[in-house]
Amino acid sequence: MVDNIDHEPRHRRTGQISAPRPMYIEIAESILERIESGELSPGSRLSSERELSRTLRVTRATARQALKVLEDRGLLYRRPGLGTYVADPKIERQAGKLVPFTRGMQRRGYLTKARLIKFERIPAESTLARELEIPVGAPVFYISRVREINHEPVLLENLWVPAARFPQLERFDLSARSLYEVMETEYGVKVSRAKQSLEPVAATEYEASHLKVKPGSPLMLERRVAMDEGAQPVERARDLFRGDRFRFVTEIAPLEL
Amino acid sequence: MVDNIDHEPRHRRTGQISAPRPMYIEIAESILERIESGELSPGSRLSSERELSRTLRVTRATARQALKVLEDRGLLYRRPGLGTYVADPKIERQAGKLVPFTRGMQRRGYLTKARLIKFERIPAESTLARELEIPVGAPVFYISRVREINHEPVLLENLWVPAARFPQLERFDLSARSLYEVMETEYGVKVSRAKQSLEPVAATEYEASHLKVKPGSPLMLERRVAMDEGAQPVERARDLFRGDRFRFVTEIAPLEL
Repeated sequence: MVDNIDHEPRHRRTGQISAPRPMYIEIAESILERIESGELSPGSRLSSERELSRTLRVTRATARQALKVLEDRGLLYRRPGLGTYVADPKIERQAGKLVPFTRGMQRRGYLTKARLIKFERIPAESTLARELEIPVGAPVFYISRVREINHEPVLLENLWVPAARFPQLERFDLSARSLYEVMETEYGVKVSRAKQSLEPVAATEYEASHLKVKPGSPLMLERRVAMDEGAQPVERARDLFRGDRFRFVTEIAPLEL
Repeated sequence: MVDNIDHEPRHRRTGQISAPRPMYIEIAESILERIESGELSPGSRLSSERELSRTLRVTRATARQALKVLEDRGLLYRRPGLGTYVADPKIERQAGKLVPFTRGMQRRGYLTKARLIKFERIPAESTLARELEIPVGAPVFYISRVREINHEPVLLENLWVPAARFPQLERFDLSARSLYEVMETEYGVKVSRAKQSLEPVAATEYEASHLKVKPGSPLMLERRVAMDEGAQPVERARDLFRGDRFRFVTEIAPLEL
């Protein structure tokens, strides 16, 4: 199936290398093409597995596999007993900009809500202490929230904030207010820079239950250390975004040579 | 389990909200802390499930679940019959820079290799034509390669290149040479900008077999349109990176208000 052309430069003889790709991948791509071109719009119903298999002269198993690929990618969703529908396009999040979640979503006209699932004062263990540049054992607030848009959970936040910098943070309602807004309004601390990384991960059962997805579903793990204007760390985050709802767009960038 | 403090602002009364997190998550985090602090170094062997369950006074099922979380995140790997080991740290890829794969990896001292699995001349369908700014039906080269580092497949590339711009591209050995290098050296076309997006996805069976991971494993899908110095699209890409081997680092960025 795989041509290792280090040893067998077949393409130089024939001009083509065409190891077959499975039929369900070809079908998934042709449906994807119809979604991306706008021929199939969000919310429209797709042909059933049976109709697809008849039209394309493939087995129902192949049709099912093709639809599953697109469902797993968040492009289609099933409504049991009704059929398969084209999903809304993913929300694009700027990976190179530090846009607070609430602001980014409200700008798009989404209704947002937060549910606080953990708010604790704990001593910093060594990695956390190093990242926040505080002594090991110094008190930090650990905050875990589920963020919803249009009543659907889409983001599980885990945040750590140095308590010395934000005394009595527990007085403020972090289910209704943005953490960065509270930092700025109540403490005069302005978040101005961040180091971030993105990793694809599979949802654990715990994460899946909070995000209402199946365990193993793809999530984007965003690690972040946010700093104030004096480059002092003020927040460490481990955020988990639902992969079927978000896409992270990076800036157009010059080629680094 | 979940406190919706929109209605029940418990943290304002007690200063703490502490819905219990599952024990396996707590254990996984304490092991993670020992990895991140350097106490457990890459390649070192972890205690067995049995030892862990005895030391921590938890069931073996809980110990197994904790190890599985870290294995799924690419932080641990199992060697059947031998035990569980700490994985090498993930390779950091600059998400905001257009660093060619070969160059980025060789800079780190990795041995890289490419296997060409598809090289075809096909007519552009409408989405592809729009992205490459060419007429529908115009010829494109479709190139699919598996990239390896240190003999391990880590990236499945799918690239589309306008044939009119790169006549007889099939003459060049894309299993040994970088596409961007060929474009520059052989055609005088310099890739200078790109639009990119990142999404976490689950590996299909086809992708899993090429990347030697289990179907459903988390992958990072990088969509890209690369442009030459005149802002003309010269490549469309759908790259799939193994999530257990890569982390995408974004630039330190000013806060966008």
